[in-house]
Amino acid sequence: MPDFFPLLQTPLLQGPIPLLAAETEASSGEVAPLVLAGVLLSLVVIYLASKVGGEICARINLPPVLGELVGGVVVGVSALHLIVFPESGATAADSMIISLLQSTAGLSPDIAGEVFQAQSEVVSVLAEMGVILLLFEIGLESDLKELIKVGPQAAVVAIVGVVTPFALGTLGLLAIFQMALVPAIFAGAALTATSIGITAKVLSELRQLSTREGQIIIGAAILDDILGIVVLAVVASLAKTGEVKLANVAILIFSAAAFLIGTIVIGRLLAPYFLGVVKEMKTRGELLIAALIVALILSYVGAIIHLEAILGAFAAGLILGETEKRHDLEEQVVPIADVLVPIFFISVGAKTELGVLNPMDPSNREGLIIAAFLVLVAIVGKVVTGFTVFGPEKVNKLAIGFGMIPRGEVGLVFAGVGAASGALSDSLNAAIIVMVIATTFIAPPLLRIAFNQDDGDGDGKSAETVALAADES
Amino acid sequence: MPDFFPLLQTPLLQGPIPLLAAETEASSGEVAPLVLAGVLLSLVVIYLASKVGGEICARINLPPVLGELVGGVVVGVSALHLIVFPESGATAADSMIISLLQSTAGLSPDIAGEVFQAQSEVVSVLAEMGVILLLFEIGLESDLKELIKVGPQAAVVAIVGVVTPFALGTLGLLAIFQMALVPAIFAGAALTATSIGITAKVLSELRQLSTREGQIIIGAAILDDILGIVVLAVVASLAKTGEVKLANVAILIFSAAAFLIGTIVIGRLLAPYFLGVVKEMKTRGELLIAALIVALILSYVGAIIHLEAILGAFAAGLILGETEKRHDLEEQVVPIADVLVPIFFISVGAKTELGVLNPMDPSNREGLIIAAFLVLVAIVGKVVTGFTVFGPEKVNKLAIGFGMIPRGEVGLVFAGVGAASGALSDSLNAAIIVMVIATTFIAPPLLRIAFNQDDGDGDGKSAETVALAADES
Repeated sequence: MPDFFPLLQTPLLQGPIPLLAAETEASSGEVAPLVLAGVLLSLVVIYLASKVGGEICARINLPPVLGELVGGVVVGVSALHLIVFPESGATAADSMIISLLQSTAGLSPDIAGEVFQAQSEVVSVLAEMGVILLLFEIGLESDLKELIKVGPQAAVVAIVGVVTPFALGTLGLLAIFQMALVPAIFAGAALTATSIGITAKVLSELRQLSTREGQIIIGAAILDDILGIVVLAVVASLAKTGEVKLANVAILIFSAAAFLIGTIVIGRLLAPYFLGVVKEMKTRGELLIAALIVALILSYVGAIIHLEAILGAFAAGLILGETEKRHDLEEQVVPIADVLVPIFFISVGAKTELGVLNPMDPSNREGLIIAAFLVLVAIVGKVVTGFTVFGPEKVNKLAIGFGMIPRGEVGLVFAGVGAASGALSDSLNAAIIVMVIATTFIAPPLLRIAFNQDDGDGDGKSAETVALAADES
Repeated sequence: MPDFFPLLQTPLLQGPIPLLAAETEASSGEVAPLVLAGVLLSLVVIYLASKVGGEICARINLPPVLGELVGGVVVGVSALHLIVFPESGATAADSMIISLLQSTAGLSPDIAGEVFQAQSEVVSVLAEMGVILLLFEIGLESDLKELIKVGPQAAVVAIVGVVTPFALGTLGLLAIFQMALVPAIFAGAALTATSIGITAKVLSELRQLSTREGQIIIGAAILDDILGIVVLAVVASLAKTGEVKLANVAILIFSAAAFLIGTIVIGRLLAPYFLGVVKEMKTRGELLIAALIVALILSYVGAIIHLEAILGAFAAGLILGETEKRHDLEEQVVPIADVLVPIFFISVGAKTELGVLNPMDPSNREGLIIAAFLVLVAIVGKVVTGFTVFGPEKVNKLAIGFGMIPRGEVGLVFAGVGAASGALSDSLNAAIIVMVIATTFIAPPLLRIAFNQDDGDGDGKSAETVALAADES
């Protein structure tokens, strides 16, 4: 690593950087400004990667979010090692950001570990805030009445989309690969939960979020997310103790239902008071901050009742999207989402370990064969869901199926919990990771194809018109 | 602490929260979701405090930012202990956020310290990002040509505003309080640097940022900030080694000048290419993200050459404010600033330890008497600067002097460095902190009075007209 700023090697300039924070202790006085410098540098890398990746994909007619994921892979653990996380076993020595800080900002090796830990923590939380903002925005853009209308269809899509890949995956692993019952059930379970982030972002990019297809996908993905959490709780308890406590599962299902229905019912009752308070406020950012307070509280409640923060954010978006302030709020949320959401997608890409995909490494081969099977089941198991959609209106069934494909990080949580409990072999664990990578990266182009194809016939145009009409209203 | 959610005490629900992040290790799998929950809760507290405080102040005709500072005091270390920081000696046991997480989210005591450390780190970095965004926004709203035009006047204001309080303070402490030379110089030095954040925010709230007075204050505060860093380097080296290395001071002054002039000259040359790239981009948020990349890079460079990140952010704002995209950019930066800036002001308030102001505690009394002297010098030493403004045009001299009063966090850095080096006695250290608190809280109402008074005569109206004309252009 060359010294970019030889001037900085003078003694005076290796002392603590006198940043604005009031540091009264010597050690934190050295660490805190370097953590900030590390975060600034990480954000530069993240934004550059997201825009370069996004722009390239936009030019070759692929969804920009796919470019962000690939950009994340390039700057992440599989290539440049700029954005790496301690959770995946990286240390300060693996982080190029830390090396850059050492050569440009005079970071001393003895506090490198502390700075790495803290700056990764900050980037992780910013990424989480990114997906929270994304789901808040998706909630705002969704139409509660339309969601309720498509509710039964979305529920069927969600349930079929959980049961089919689970059954196909578990039975296939038992029958074809002669696997034991618990690991087979675990891998089957990892095939169940759709990752709503990727799909929602692609739908938004294609301006298909407020179409009937879009709303069925979002509704199903939300229900699917809840089902995934329930499945995870069941499987994790099975792997740990060998039995399933039905009472706990019942509590989880009950609290999920109570949370979603409760927040929406209570939220609609309280919305007029919310607007009343906002109208009385005189300081800058009154609507945005008031709305964020609602979103953050519901995210917090979602997180602590062992659902997910993003479900709370989505519910908050849905409620506030029903108010007359919807368009003002959307306008103000867009720049914040633009700033935070790329941190999430780049992080997802950055955590992707492409090493497990290398067929030249003999230890990967068994995993890759199982992976091929899991990918097939993952795609088939979700594509069939589109064909369960009933009702008089014609919908783009293929788009719905494709929209449910990405497993994203939820699948990785399964792999992580499974590996930690010892239920999964290395090859099965790698196979699940490959399945998550493949479904995450394949879904955006498939979705685009499904909606573009659809543009040819009458259906697609009517969907487009609905979207435009909704945008204008 | 009551259990708000008794349901959560069931065994299943005390396991790790399956949030979206891919956690493959058991321990980080437990910590990360709780850190996120802690940050969500902290943000709720911060936004509530900032809006309640801001709205109350707006109603009693005080600047809202004063309300945010007071709101910060209420939720901070002096009162509710919701927002506390390890740098000021707080532990997990002192944090009400951690107590809330223990009672609502099942945080176990053995990881409470880790969660507290990480969530404080995140809130601290978000606060720093807040002041970076604030200075970026101030840079965007500033007018480079006007700043250059008022440059000589701003330079005189800055230099007089550093020399006067330093000389009065040091000599007074030597003569009246019979203090030793080094502590007297240290306390004198702590009186020098204006905190730009508070003043810039008040100017923006009063719509006086683009007036001649506003631009002189901003220009002088920026120069003052650089002088303050130079003074800190000199005094810290004096306290540590008893001598001053002039070569190092020269390097610091040279790099500061080279950085500010260099970024602005090079930035103006590169601005057309920046606009060219942005025009070619097709993905969402192209202008905002491209601008943020510039701001983050300059902030990083500002931080690592031992100036401040905020100087880089201000320079980036100045350059981009010269382009034709200024108004689009301002519009998109506003919501982000609205979300991040309150985190900074609430943190400043939260770190304010009101205990040192209590005259009933005998150990505070000596400090309070010295403090009264320092506050007087701090105010007089800056108010005189307004009367040094020369030139044919009439300006509001009092407003300029008042605008330079707040010492904010820069003064606290002096107190921290001085206390760490052993140069300051406890009472002198407390006196500096009281001086910082007093100047920070007194400046916003004084500024408002100065500008309101001014509205009465012709001068003020012309200033107002300039501001409006600038807004419309």
